[in-house]
Amino acid sequence: MTKLLYPTSLVLDVASLEGYSVQLVPYDVKAPQIPAEHHDATILVTWTNTPDNLRYAQANLKNLRWIQSLAAGPNDVLGAGFDTSKVTVTTGSGLHDRTVAEHALGLLLNGARRFYEMRDFQLQNKWPAHLGGPQPDRPKDRFTTLRDARVLVWGFGNIAKCLVPSLTVLGAQVKGVARSTGVRDGVEVYSEDHLAKLLPETDALVMILPGSDSTKNALNAERLKLLPNHAWVINVGRGTSIDEDALVDALEKNEIGGAALDVFQTEPLPESSRLWKAPNVVVSPHAAGGRPQDAEALITYNLRRFLAGQALKNVI
Amino acid sequence: MTKLLYPTSLVLDVASLEGYSVQLVPYDVKAPQIPAEHHDATILVTWTNTPDNLRYAQANLKNLRWIQSLAAGPNDVLGAGFDTSKVTVTTGSGLHDRTVAEHALGLLLNGARRFYEMRDFQLQNKWPAHLGGPQPDRPKDRFTTLRDARVLVWGFGNIAKCLVPSLTVLGAQVKGVARSTGVRDGVEVYSEDHLAKLLPETDALVMILPGSDSTKNALNAERLKLLPNHAWVINVGRGTSIDEDALVDALEKNEIGGAALDVFQTEPLPESSRLWKAPNVVVSPHAAGGRPQDAEALITYNLRRFLAGQALKNVI
Repeated sequence: MTKLLYPTSLVLDVASLEGYSVQLVPYDVKAPQIPAEHHDATILVTWTNTPDNLRYAQANLKNLRWIQSLAAGPNDVLGAGFDTSKVTVTTGSGLHDRTVAEHALGLLLNGARRFYEMRDFQLQNKWPAHLGGPQPDRPKDRFTTLRDARVLVWGFGNIAKCLVPSLTVLGAQVKGVARSTGVRDGVEVYSEDHLAKLLPETDALVMILPGSDSTKNALNAERLKLLPNHAWVINVGRGTSIDEDALVDALEKNEIGGAALDVFQTEPLPESSRLWKAPNVVVSPHAAGGRPQDAEALITYNLRRFLAGQALKNVI
Repeated sequence: MTKLLYPTSLVLDVASLEGYSVQLVPYDVKAPQIPAEHHDATILVTWTNTPDNLRYAQANLKNLRWIQSLAAGPNDVLGAGFDTSKVTVTTGSGLHDRTVAEHALGLLLNGARRFYEMRDFQLQNKWPAHLGGPQPDRPKDRFTTLRDARVLVWGFGNIAKCLVPSLTVLGAQVKGVARSTGVRDGVEVYSEDHLAKLLPETDALVMILPGSDSTKNALNAERLKLLPNHAWVINVGRGTSIDEDALVDALEKNEIGGAALDVFQTEPLPESSRLWKAPNVVVSPHAAGGRPQDAEALITYNLRRFLAGQALKNVI
């Protein structure tokens, strides 16, 4: 019978994977080896496996035909040397949409409401009077609220679609940038050709780009200069999509309003990074996702298709 | 002609107040006096007036019949000694709903996503690894997300109604507590009699109670003990509604998960307050509101009714 190895590194409702002619076997993703009696597995579900574990699987699971990663970007699996002409790799794209969107919203509000600055005062038992009491409503030269804020989401995929309702409920004006353009979920999505026009009209830029050669340093010095001086940059995609030196320069020269970052060129962010102390930076430790939600639904969706010989979802 | 004095302490679109048989006159709310030629004013719009200014108005504006405050709770006007049998006082209730609701949402996400704790690490150039990377999804014993979180809004008025869509979009299960009960805007609203049952089923308690004798120390030691150990308390209503000593005790004993507070018994929060350094406290300096939105619409709505001899909106 077809054997599926599932990870014990997260809580899966295994009962909801049952009902197929498939043997379900748990395995330890941190172990350097996978027990010999399971080297005949056809399907491997991965989540936070060690590199050793994946290399071992690559070398020893000769019947493997499908790897279902629960990560949005399974670089770990791709780096282990599997022969993708024989083994189909599918991603966990979609399992992280809601949690990443929520984190992005939190980072936006952290920037707008300046909770990070309030914290600095709190640590000194000091009341930051300038941040409270009567204030101007929606001043044009600052990012203080999502109401009427012009939010540009660069990388308009499923996470963005999940974020949009939260933004529109709060009164933001949302536009998107992506390869496939047009009106999507009520949002006008433009190609990157339009960035020169869009960036100057942006109060908050939310980056949700995947990591790839084509997105490397997508937000560079030239594009940063196009943003208004009060604009915030949020990044919940991949750290490689921002030129961090150019970002720190822009922050130090007050050419942008701030940056709330969950991802970095190097993670953990090195202690020597200029980002830690640059003005109006919020450092979040790659915390937006990291908790696949409703993984069982994706696994069974693909499992049925695999058994029926149909094309899988989220193939790399 | 009827004379209306409007404040210059905020940007009002005066053109959109025109069209009535009323003379519109700007005045300085911080000046100790109001010029003698305007002592005949019938209507006074107030916003961040000094106590002196209000006392002067009370003593000298003998024709005054209506004060439109733009504050949600115009304690300043009430404290100046106006004879409310002769002068109708209307509040700015409604002008702060959206901005206070947004701040409450930000405080909830600050607590759930622990941005305050990330900040403490950032200030030391340290990566808070325990807050990022793979994490359990929606653990029952922690408040980590609004998805599936049980949010109880105590003081279910217009601000709450404004907050609910943001909460439900993120997947929270919202209940309310208020004097008038029943299903309101799709949310089941209970009377305070039900708190003993509701509090133990709460992951996040959002307090939006007005300041009054009846709400003083509404959240006391006894009720705090009813909350789960992981529950967060958010307060964007009035500081008097929480027994702060009992709150700090509960925080220090880990009897609740945390507290994000925008209002306090004494403001500014005294440097000696135990709240500054209590575990998992977020101190926000009464920053949720403070910026009346769409004040012109309320003023003109009431102005027409005043001129027609009809009952005003938001009468105290």
